[in-house]
Order: sequence, then structure tokens, then C-alpha cells
Amino acid sequence: MIKVSVVGAKGRMGLHVVEAVNNAEDTQLALALDAGDDLTQITTDNTDVVVEFTVPSVSLNNVLTLIGQGVDVVVGTTGWTDEKLAQVKSAIANGPKPETQKVFIAPNFAISAVLADYFATKAAKYFESAEVIELHHPTKVDAPSGTAIHTAHGIAEARKAAGLAPVPDATETDGGSRGQVVDGIHVHAVRLRGLNAHEEVLFGNAGEQLTIRADSFDRTSFMPGVLLAVRKLAGDAPAGLTIGLDHFLDL
Amino acid sequence: MIKVSVVGAKGRMGLHVVEAVNNAEDTQLALALDAGDDLTQITTDNTDVVVEFTVPSVSLNNVLTLIGQGVDVVVGTTGWTDEKLAQVKSAIANGPKPETQKVFIAPNFAISAVLADYFATKAAKYFESAEVIELHHPTKVDAPSGTAIHTAHGIAEARKAAGLAPVPDATETDGGSRGQVVDGIHVHAVRLRGLNAHEEVLFGNAGEQLTIRADSFDRTSFMPGVLLAVRKLAGDAPAGLTIGLDHFLDL
Amino acid sequence: MIKVSVVGAKGRMGLHVVEAVNNAEDTQLALALDAGDDLTQITTDNTDVVVEFTVPSVSLNNVLTLIGQGVDVVVGTTGWTDEKLAQVKSAIANGPKPETQKVFIAPNFAISAVLADYFATKAAKYFESAEVIELHHPTKVDAPSGTAIHTAHGIAEARKAAGLAPVPDATETDGGSRGQVVDGIHVHAVRLRGLNAHEEVLFGNAGEQLTIRADSFDRTSFMPGVLLAVRKLAGDAPAGLTIGLDHFLDL
Amino acid sequence: MIKVSVVGAKGRMGLHVVEAVNNAEDTQLALALDAGDDLTQITTDNTDVVVEFTVPSVSLNNVLTLIGQGVDVVVGTTGWTDEKLAQVKSAIANGPKPETQKVFIAPNFAISAVLADYFATKAAKYFESAEVIELHHPTKVDAPSGTAIHTAHGIAEARKAAGLAPVPDATETDGGSRGQVVDGIHVHAVRLRGLNAHEEVLFGNAGEQLTIRADSFDRTSFMPGVLLAVRKLAGDAPAGLTIGLDHFLDL
Repeated sequence: MIKVSVVGAKGRMGLHVVEAVNNAEDTQLALALDAGDDLTQITTDNTDVVVEFTVPSVSLNNVLTLIGQGVDVVVGTTGWTDEKLAQVKSAIANGPKPETQKVFIAPNFAISAVLADYFATKAAKYFESAEVIELHHPTKVDAPSGTAIHTAHGIAEARKAAGLAPVPDATETDGGSRGQVVDGIHVHAVRLRGLNAHEEVLFGNAGEQLTIRADSFDRTSFMPGVLLAVRKLAGDAPAGLTIGLDHFLDL
Repeated sequence: MIKVSVVGAKGRMGLHVVEAVNNAEDTQLALALDAGDDLTQITTDNTDVVVEFTVPSVSLNNVLTLIGQGVDVVVGTTGWTDEKLAQVKSAIANGPKPETQKVFIAPNFAISAVLADYFATKAAKYFESAEVIELHHPTKVDAPSGTAIHTAHGIAEARKAAGLAPVPDATETDGGSRGQVVDGIHVHAVRLRGLNAHEEVLFGNAGEQLTIRADSFDRTSFMPGVLLAVRKLAGDAPAGLTIGLDHFLDL
Repeated sequence: MIKVSVVGAKGRMGLHVVEAVNNAEDTQLALALDAGDDLTQITTDNTDVVVEFTVPSVSLNNVLTLIGQGVDVVVGTTGWTDEKLAQVKSAIANGPKPETQKVFIAPNFAISAVLADYFATKAAKYFESAEVIELHHPTKVDAPSGTAIHTAHGIAEARKAAGLAPVPDATETDGGSRGQVVDGIHVHAVRLRGLNAHEEVLFGNAGEQLTIRADSFDRTSFMPGVLLAVRKLAGDAPAGLTIGLDHFLDL
Repeated sequence: MIKVSVVGAKGRMGLHVVEAVNNAEDTQLALALDAGDDLTQITTDNTDVVVEFTVPSVSLNNVLTLIGQGVDVVVGTTGWTDEKLAQVKSAIANGPKPETQKVFIAPNFAISAVLADYFATKAAKYFESAEVIELHHPTKVDAPSGTAIHTAHGIAEARKAAGLAPVPDATETDGGSRGQVVDGIHVHAVRLRGLNAHEEVLFGNAGEQLTIRADSFDRTSFMPGVLLAVRKLAGDAPAGLTIGLDHFLDL
């Protein structure tokens, strides 16, 4: 049994994590803490892995505290900058177990989204054309999604490495219908009531198309990825800071 | 048997029309003419309906000539302006059979595309969100397609007539990923090698989505629509100028 | 303000109806009753329209009681047989307001699904091929869905009325991959964890395809249809028993 | 420049191969032979790689002859049994260059289809549900496609290796709508006029879906795969018999 503590346990994601930890056969809930609770209650005696899902403004401090406690941490909060990540690395190096401390941060725990992004990068060099369409609910404040930008960069890098020419395009496109060009790849964002978070990657050659699509219908979609990360940290994940669920998938 | 003459018979579309007319059980090929041929060979003695598929620069003159011959015409050539259409109407009024002359012009003969456009207009007032994605081969010079703009206008008009609020949207969308806004409706254009001509209309309410998609894989997709128009002109189509295949569909 | 009472107010659907009635600007909640509550509390003094979402075993009695109270009823419960419907009609005829009583029963309140079904029936006669794919969560006990069977029948009837030949098919199909044949139309059922209720209708001619797809992601998808029915019963809906949301859509 | 001879040069696929070889910058056409032509004209003097696209009844003999000539062969003809493959291996072993002879046979040269199949196998173990839908033109004689069966087997094997439970399913499915069960995976075949060859693989977990789709719109879709194989055989492909384009993709 893996003993899992949850920080941010009353938040929208935290509630799902608590339920997932309670329901899985190989995990059990240790402490469920939220804003105002003392994180130093979490120790290696009562906890194998902590799952931290809070907000960007407090997540760094939480993670630094938890590293100081010597417990391994899965972080789902977003908003990590290079500077913040450097502070995490420094905290590990100066913490109580620099050789064995594990910290895992992921921008996306939906396995379908992580796989789609990975497959898109692998497929990219075999197609003359590639575009990305992401679709979200209209209350998402920004467009396009960070995931779509990440996918576009991955495709662009794979094309460059393979020496591909730029994607062919229409020439009279003044009105903006061709979307946002990210590193040479056109990215389109749809905002539609009823949707949650979706991404579709289209590849084309003469006579053929490959489409890879990931749909996240609700927050439960992140739980298999969270549990996978918990098991990896309790298992054979490497020490240090790891970023991205693709590192824990066997691809 | 409907006797059909084809003008532009050696063009990309004309070749398909000749084949379709030869293959259908209720039509037979009369004259197959192309650039340089004398259109006054076409008369009501040898021809019931003419199909004209040429280029915008000559199509108006062809149609005026054919009206002068008193034969009914199905026109597939694009590029019709209000001014040109007025000339056609005038020619009918001053022609040999002002009461019975039939001229039919359609911007799109693909039945799937015409139905998709029609259904989108009917569905529009029942959904909070609506967006249009069109997808074409990358050698199409412009973006978005005229069909997508037409669909967006139809949706916008139906929403206004029903008193709907503007579609909900993201607020931070500087990069252009949200596409071209046509009358309040976001239109996205994908250009992908391997594709031909495709349009997808997305409608959303809380918890539900309706998607209507038309795919035209090649030029044979226009032939059922051309034959439908030919039969209508040889049959019960109203006299005068009719624009748009939706007028000949039983919807 | 339309005064709406809800019967089955604590059920899965009823909870959503109560919330929808509270949130809409033109409706207000009157009584919210559930199993064991006395339905004769509902009168024309306190209620304009009742929404009944219970279970098949009690729904008929509820509806008969409400007709006896002289209140108009929107029924979302399933399981209506011809015999039960006859009892409803008889109760209306013998009730306190036979000339003005309105009862509305719908097998599906998702507007996207009702529109998809309607559009499929309209499109059917223009295509050589037609197939239906429905996709649901794997805990739905039966396959295919009643909606898919209804759609297949509608397509089949439209094809027959238009004199179309049977759909073309493969000849070596022993293994069952071609799905269930409903009135000549092939119906495929997918059962996939993560899905809710979805239907896709595919139409094909040489060179073209038309796809109509309805996605119901969760129960909130039924609320716009429920509110539409409530408004119609409080407004210009005809007296008597009406079955099917398509009667209330302007198509 | 890679010198390429084509056997079956007047066949439907052969014509495309000749065109592709002529158009590519790094290949040039050597001999274009068809039924009745003497294959011993093809020698290592005039040819680097042969592309053989004929029919199952003659393909084995053609390949054996070409091995006897010591030229490397890309084979696109289908219908290879274990017995026939054993004959090819034996011919290589007893041929003029047993250490360096290269023969490549592929059931599918569409890169999108090969990638979809490969990605499906990699994704399989991360999802509770998986189904395969293949869609083809209605003149394809059999259903489901060999590619769909191959994909289903690959998914089933990956699930077994990972210890996954059987896919969850509906329980009342007598009518056949759930399709053909291949090694525990449900496979659906759609036959629709206008389509060519398409495959969609659906994976589902609670709250999420991954969809991988390959579309082959026409025979030109096979040419990038054929040229890739030609280049590999002229380059660093291993000696001996290789089966499947996935061996030549960098995945």
C-alpha cells in the first residue's frame, strides 16, 4: 500500500485525487490538507508520496517545505517558470536526501493528451502538412492552450531535424482564418460551450491523412495519470526533478 | 431522355459532366463544345438543357448567347457578381422566351455541402456557440472558402433573428488562433496536403455538441448535383433565374 | 414567469431540472416533489407546468394523477408503450379540461440528438449509402440505443419513399463486423469508457460524404430541451398528447 | 540516383509507382515491365531496386526470379502466406548473394496507416476500453479489413502483456451491433460510397478518449511509403527478408 497525502485536498482537483487514492487498490489516503494546514505534519513516517494540487502563488513554497520534510512529491499545479524550477532543484540538492529525493511536475496528467502530443512529435517528419486544432469551453481565458503550443513546437522541431520544407499554404489569407502560426505550424483554437479540453493534430501527404485526437471530458481524466505518477515515485522513478508524464510512459 | 449539351466539355469539370451525362439512364449527350466552338450550334431542336462549366471571364457571354438561343442553362462556373446576374435577368426578359426561360447558377453542386449549409442555418438558433472549420488542399489560393463565409453568414442571421447573444469567447486571444470573425462567427481554415474540400460546423450548448460535416473528396462529388439540376430544368423548375442548389432540394 | 413544479425532484434528472428552472429568467420553481409526496398538492393555482422525471413503473400513475389535477405535464421518463399512451389519451378526454389539457412526452430532450435525427431523415434520400454509429459508456446495458434504431428507421423510410435501391455492401462479411441491420441500414454500437451518449450518421455518394453527429456529454444537455418544452406548454403548444421534441423545433 | 525498375508497371499501382519514381529527385526509372516481359532483363547493372506490384498468383515467382538475378526487391503485392515467405527465405539463402540480398514485403504502404497501427499498439495498455472502426468503399469484397484485424490483434496483445482486464461491454447485445470480436477487441466495418480506405482506433478511460485515425483517399497515398522502402533498400536496410513498413520508420 502506498501512503498518499494530498495538499489542496479541498480544491477541485484535490477532491478528485482524494477519491482516486481511496478507490485504487494499491494506495491509501494518509493526510488530506488544505489552505491553512501545517504541511510539516507530513513526514516519511506517515506518507510515501504527496500529491500537490493548489494554485501557482503557493505551490512553490509548498513544494520547498515538502522537500524539507524529505517526502517525494507529485505536483499538478501549473505556472512553473525556469526560475521556480531552479529553486526546486536547489532545494533538492540542499535537502535532507539529495541523492534520493523525487519531485515530479506535469503540465498535463491526461494520458490521452500526453500520448497525442508524443505521437504527434513522432509522426511529424513523415508528412508534408501538419496543423493543430484545440477546442475548449469558452470560459477558458486564453487561446490557444499551452498544450497546443507545446505540440506545435514539438512538430516544428521534428520537421526541422528531418530537413522538411515549410508547410504548403494558401497565399491570400488576410482575414486571419489560417490561425496562429507557432514556429511555422498553424494552430487553431475553437471555444464552444459544452466542450471541456480537446486537441486534434492533423497530418497530410498526397492522398492520405493521419489524425490524432485527445479528448478530456472532465477532471476524472487526470486521475489515471496522477496515480501512475504516484506509483512511479513510490517505485522506480529516478531521483531528482522530473517534468512531464511522458517520462513515465513506456513508449 | 433529356438531351444535354456541355459547354466547356474539355475542362476538368466538363469531362466529368460528359461522363455523368453518358452514364445516367435518363440523360444523353447532345453537343460537347469547348473554347472556340460556336455556341449557336446549340438549339432547342438538339438540346433540352445546357451545362456550362467554363471560366468566369467567358461564362457571362456564354450564358447570354445560350439565352438568346432559347435553351435552358445550368451554370457551374463561379465568379458571379450582382452586376453580372442583373445582365442575365435582363437577357431573359428580352430573350426569345421570357416567360419560360430557365437559368440555374450554383456556387456549389456538392449535395453534402449544400445540405450541411442548410442544416447549419436551421440548427443555429438552438445553440449558444457556433464555429466553422473549413479544410482544403494547400494549393487553393484563398482562405477561408466562400462556402465557409456563406455558412457563417447564414448562422449569424439565424442567431440574430432569434435574438441570441454573441457567442461566448476567450478573452486573451491576441495571437490569432481564434480565426477570422465573419459576422460574429469564428471561421478557421485548415490547409492540408491530401485533402480536397471539407467543411465542419460545430454547435455547442452546455453538455452537448452538434457537428455537421461535408466532405468533397473529388470532382465526381458534384455530378449528382449537376444531374439533379438538369432534371429540374427539364422538369418542374420555375422559369427565370434560380441561384443555389438548395432550391432544388426537398427540405 | 412560468411556475414549474418538478416530480422526481431528488432523482438524477430531477436535480438538474430544479437547478435549470431556478436559473432560467422566465421560470420559477413551484413545488419540488419526490417519491412518497402527495401529487395532489400540485394545482393550477400554484403551477403552470409540471416536469415529471421518475421511473417507468410509477410515471403513468403520476401523469394520470396530474391530468386529473388539470395541470399540463412535460414527461421525461422513458418506457412508454402504445397501451400506456392510450391510457394517457383517455385520461385527457375524461379529465377536467379535455379541450385544453397539454401532455408532452419525449424520449430524448437533447436538442442536438433530436436535430441530428431530423436532419438525417431529410438528407437520407440524396445519398447512395447511409450508416449509423452510436457510441455510449459501457455501463449502458443494451446495444444499439433506441435513438440509433429510431434514426435507422427514419433513414430507411425516407429511402423507400424516394425509391432508392438497397445500400451497396461488401459480400464476405461473416464475422459480424458489418453490425446490426435495422430495416436495411447498418447500425454499429461502440461501448467506450469515458463516453456518455453519442450518435454519428454517415451518408455517402461517389466523391462525397455528409456526417451528422450529436454528442451528449452529460445530463445538463437535456435542460435546454426541457425548458423549451415547458415554455411551449405554457405558450402555444397544441392541446392533447404530443410526442417528440421535434414537434417543438422550428425546422 | 537510385535506379528503379518496376514490375507490374501497367497495373493500377504500377502506374503510380512509375510516376512517383520519375518525379522523385533521387530516383530514376530503369525498366518498366509488365505481364509477359522477361524479368531477367533486370540486372544489377541497370537496376538498384525493383518494385513489384502484380497479383498474388504470379508475385512469388517474380520475386524468386529477381532474387536469382541478385537485385533487391520491394514487394507490394498482397497474399503472402507463411509457406510463400519460407520459399523467399530459402531463395535468398541459395541465391547469388545470400549475405546481402534484401527483400521487403509490406501489406500496407500508407505511412498514415502504418503509424496509426503502431501508435495504437503503444497506447493500448493505458486505456480501459479500445475499439476499432474501419471504413471502406462498398466494392471492397470483404469485411473487416486485414489492417483492422491486425490492429485489433496488436491492441489485444499489448493489453494481455500489461495484464489488463477484458474491455467493459454492454450485456444485451444480441442483434450484432457490437461488431466482430477479434481477440477480445470489437471491430466495426463501415461500407460507404465515396470512401476509400480509413481506420479509426478509439481508446477510452474515465473522462478521456484518444482517437487515432488514418485516411487513405487514393493510391497516391502509398507512394511515399514505396519510395521510403526503395531508399532504405538502396541504403541501410538490413539484408534478408523484412516484413512491414514499421521496420523502416524511426519510431
